[in-house]
Amino acid sequence: MADPAPLDFFTVVDTQRAIRRFRPDLVPDDALRRVLEAATRAPSARGAEPWFFVVARDAALRARIAAAYRRAWEAARTVTAQADLDADLKDRPHYARMMRGVDALARQLATVPVLIACCLDHRQLGPIAGPDGTLRSPCAAYASIFPAVQNLLLAARALGLGTTLTTLHRGVEDELAAALAIPPGVEVAALVPLGYPADHFGPTRRKSLDAVAFLDGWGRPLPRR
Amino acid sequence: MADPAPLDFFTVVDTQRAIRRFRPDLVPDDALRRVLEAATRAPSARGAEPWFFVVARDAALRARIAAAYRRAWEAARTVTAQADLDADLKDRPHYARMMRGVDALARQLATVPVLIACCLDHRQLGPIAGPDGTLRSPCAAYASIFPAVQNLLLAARALGLGTTLTTLHRGVEDELAAALAIPPGVEVAALVPLGYPADHFGPTRRKSLDAVAFLDGWGRPLPRR
Repeated sequence: MADPAPLDFFTVVDTQRAIRRFRPDLVPDDALRRVLEAATRAPSARGAEPWFFVVARDAALRARIAAAYRRAWEAARTVTAQADLDADLKDRPHYARMMRGVDALARQLATVPVLIACCLDHRQLGPIAGPDGTLRSPCAAYASIFPAVQNLLLAARALGLGTTLTTLHRGVEDELAAALAIPPGVEVAALVPLGYPADHFGPTRRKSLDAVAFLDGWGRPLPRR
Repeated sequence: MADPAPLDFFTVVDTQRAIRRFRPDLVPDDALRRVLEAATRAPSARGAEPWFFVVARDAALRARIAAAYRRAWEAARTVTAQADLDADLKDRPHYARMMRGVDALARQLATVPVLIACCLDHRQLGPIAGPDGTLRSPCAAYASIFPAVQNLLLAARALGLGTTLTTLHRGVEDELAAALAIPPGVEVAALVPLGYPADHFGPTRRKSLDAVAFLDGWGRPLPRR
């Protein structure tokens, strides 16, 4: 696939959205390296760069991860439905479509050409984690991995590749760690599928800026354009 | 200040770095809205968009926040030095310069033209938080705010504005919440100063990609370029 023309930053950020349906086309090595390299440009607490990215491209490995992921999804869906855990937002316009996409992804995960386990190494967090790896400041810890994950999602979009940030694997994290030989003390914070999209990129719909951003105190309006 | 020419995505991501020294020039309203709007383009668990951004631009308010921040920094610096908490990385090339920058920022925070409290609303996290707001999955919770923070940092860079992701305010979070009238149940996950840089943008230096990214299992090399 020919390289697309470079996209300006705001086109990328405004049209990046969760892609949950993928074409089977392979992801070129250069593109894979470029999105991972972008991830490593992110900030981290103490400049420690406490991240690792474990890419699954082997078909048998992806099938093993996908089987575990699907069980995690089925369990989460059952609990969510039984206890009505999404009651607060299931009437919002995005919800039904999002849930169909999440279900489609869980069923098809083995066919996505690349899966990326985005890992946070608790052993490199210094005072943010205790000697046993327990997080003393989960906020500062995850502030050292999710900016990198977001860079990865945006860089993929810039190259015409789709992704979505998932944390469902946490129901089956031991199996995922075993499949990828991830050592103790290293947490998989996100599992990101990567491939050319069968869905469309944005623009995304969001709450209005004035509903979520304030000036000089809670509830006080921002200056208008 | 005239709008700079649009930057392509990879120029932005490769040159975004922590800026800790700022010029006093005002941040135009349009630029402020644009970086906040970029923040809201990020993904969030369940598509809940559980974020708020409270901007401090009023000089007295910034001075109040800066005084609390500086106390948090002095306390953190003392503890870190006494217990040698950065022993694992204080010999790395970036460390001394980073610490000088952090100290300079803490001393000068009141003079930075804009401070942005990036907030995570625990009341909008559904099953990710308990009824009392305690986080059941800190990972999924912070996965719903730090991608937005990273979008903000990158968008600022795209407009020629500097930022740095700080979490030091957590030592004085009650004071910060009082200053900005942030309601109970809403956590300030990051405090981001925003202004035209007196430091230079990157390119940033990072560990080599091959040291932190693997293919088909931990420790197995990525394909080379």
